[in-house]
Amino acid sequence: MSVTKADKENPSKDGPPAASKPNKGGLEGIVAATTAISKVEGTAGRLIYRGYNIHDLARNATFEEIIHLLWFDKLPNSTELAQLHSKLAAQRSIPEPVMAIIRLLPKTTDPMDVLRTAVSGWGALSASGTPTLDQAIALTARFPAYLAAFQRLRNGQEPLESRPELDHAANYLYLLTGNEPKEEHVRGLNSYLVLLADHGMNASTFTGRVIASTGSDISSSVTGAIGALKGPLHGGAPSKVLDMLNAIAQAKNPELWLRDAIASGDRIMGFGHRVYKTTDPRAEELREMARVADPKAFELSSEVEVTAIRLLEEEKPGRKLYTNVEFYSAALLSSIGLPGDLFTPTFAVSRVAGWTAHILEQVNNNRLIRPEADYTGPDQAKFVPLNER
Amino acid sequence: MSVTKADKENPSKDGPPAASKPNKGGLEGIVAATTAISKVEGTAGRLIYRGYNIHDLARNATFEEIIHLLWFDKLPNSTELAQLHSKLAAQRSIPEPVMAIIRLLPKTTDPMDVLRTAVSGWGALSASGTPTLDQAIALTARFPAYLAAFQRLRNGQEPLESRPELDHAANYLYLLTGNEPKEEHVRGLNSYLVLLADHGMNASTFTGRVIASTGSDISSSVTGAIGALKGPLHGGAPSKVLDMLNAIAQAKNPELWLRDAIASGDRIMGFGHRVYKTTDPRAEELREMARVADPKAFELSSEVEVTAIRLLEEEKPGRKLYTNVEFYSAALLSSIGLPGDLFTPTFAVSRVAGWTAHILEQVNNNRLIRPEADYTGPDQAKFVPLNER
Repeated sequence: MSVTKADKENPSKDGPPAASKPNKGGLEGIVAATTAISKVEGTAGRLIYRGYNIHDLARNATFEEIIHLLWFDKLPNSTELAQLHSKLAAQRSIPEPVMAIIRLLPKTTDPMDVLRTAVSGWGALSASGTPTLDQAIALTARFPAYLAAFQRLRNGQEPLESRPELDHAANYLYLLTGNEPKEEHVRGLNSYLVLLADHGMNASTFTGRVIASTGSDISSSVTGAIGALKGPLHGGAPSKVLDMLNAIAQAKNPELWLRDAIASGDRIMGFGHRVYKTTDPRAEELREMARVADPKAFELSSEVEVTAIRLLEEEKPGRKLYTNVEFYSAALLSSIGLPGDLFTPTFAVSRVAGWTAHILEQVNNNRLIRPEADYTGPDQAKFVPLNER
Repeated sequence: MSVTKADKENPSKDGPPAASKPNKGGLEGIVAATTAISKVEGTAGRLIYRGYNIHDLARNATFEEIIHLLWFDKLPNSTELAQLHSKLAAQRSIPEPVMAIIRLLPKTTDPMDVLRTAVSGWGALSASGTPTLDQAIALTARFPAYLAAFQRLRNGQEPLESRPELDHAANYLYLLTGNEPKEEHVRGLNSYLVLLADHGMNASTFTGRVIASTGSDISSSVTGAIGALKGPLHGGAPSKVLDMLNAIAQAKNPELWLRDAIASGDRIMGFGHRVYKTTDPRAEELREMARVADPKAFELSSEVEVTAIRLLEEEKPGRKLYTNVEFYSAALLSSIGLPGDLFTPTFAVSRVAGWTAHILEQVNNNRLIRPEADYTGPDQAKFVPLNER
């Protein structure tokens, strides 16, 4: 891959100054900002948060430790962790008008739309001006509460109050069910939240930074990021992995099902990534978590993974498609009891930690993010008045 | 300006592939997408929509003609214009749950937050899947209704029903006041809406395209765009121009006031633009509109413009700061009776035509917009468990 066109100056004197064209579109390979938050090494299959390898973090840290790492640029000691936990726990209640908005939305609403509207409504009430760390805490703390409230309301149950002694992952599971969450579910969800919390300049994080770069508020930035994460090319497809696994389970013959799907030109869900050209390190951790959480369901997922990689390689040798983070996310989140349409919103429960870290980083050293466009339309159309058209 | 670093390959084999660095940050001079919708020529001070010069359009076309031009790539004849008007007029009512959301928000809410939350709530009810032209119509048609409903509610009045025989600009003014709108106000607002409808790859349009590029829905894209427009570095400062003009009017001596402000390092509102290095062609049209709409207020605006340009040039010769679109937007919108905090939302009433045109263009030939980041943090931090920190 090269970017030989990237320094081509625009030949027109009247065109945008010094415009350069990325050669692949979609800003691939173009650096949009500097960041000290996370680094994605696509060729090596390596992901680090502020220097720490994702494998160490997924196996040894809770989500609240990761939030501290992303926001404060250090892993907390016990005192610091307890302080952050108190601050988050104090910000979990849903303001009355936002709860009223959630109640107004039909039971059939996509939970991502509920989350986007709740965050926008919360911002209308509570967040203005330049984004602050206190706002990041207040915003991040409430994500599980919005989703759990909607999940209970659509099942005819009343929303529950958060339990301050539970950590972010455990409290989310408690709010959804009203039951004491199982330890292995809490552990699985914690690892999931750790793994998905940040990932370089992905589309939703980039959206949040572009909005923040205009001097807008934190809720506007995060509302935009939620909208971007909703798209199936970014965060919006893990429930389709589950649909696919269920369909394969019913059909009983994974290889035949996958061969038919590939022959029909259907997209096999959960494989391939713009950046990773090898195994996604997060997928490795999620695979292990999914195996522990539900060994029986794991057998099928694993068989589908191995078979799909073989068939995809047969079909187009050298393309190197591997399972992406969606594949075992679906297996894991399903095994801890989440419905399919809460998978992407739960991705947001995690990623909002990264979004807000990036938003704070952007405003701390800001320049408006405002690219150019390459205009391909006509240049000199002659205007004709309406009555002569 | 050159982009000599733009083709620099990332030296690390493990870094992002073929990453290139824009030299000025903020993606300045980087082409993010191709478009046939509008072209901004910053050096020549020229703006065209699909080939038509903005001066011709501002003087001779209504906003509904411009919507047709942006969406359908042609200026309408009378039949086509009537058809588009009918479709827009049929989509002006506010769904009951969205009206309930607007009623829930406190009277002190920033109208941009109201608009963002209403559009998000409307999308939750009414828009899913790949963006369509019908959705663009339904979304664009309702912007004036949301703002006017909130404006009336915060003044203790009930929202009004739209009048189908009025065009977009006239109906907006009617919904705000309940009075027959004055012809010169309708003409001024129409020109304003024409002038602001699109402007290349500005930050809010870019935000909308990034969100659309993930495969997300039209309401998610536009919600993000509204959030970006809210930022004072993009669309969020025209009401501050009005505040400045009012302060200068009270102080009675524009030159002294401006000299003091420049000496104190205060930003003079309404001057300078990232792209234009000469007079913004939209500012020229708005200046003339403001002159016609309120000759007396125009005297002060004009004196402030001339004096500020002279003083800014004295302070930093060669910097070439001119009045931007905000300056006479404030004068014009104020003269047709809009309160200051509806200036930026009214900008959105116009720009949503461009946003939706760009969203439809993006999904018609899509690639995920996903840039890279330049990681500046540590590379190999050693993980220490919580109890040893």
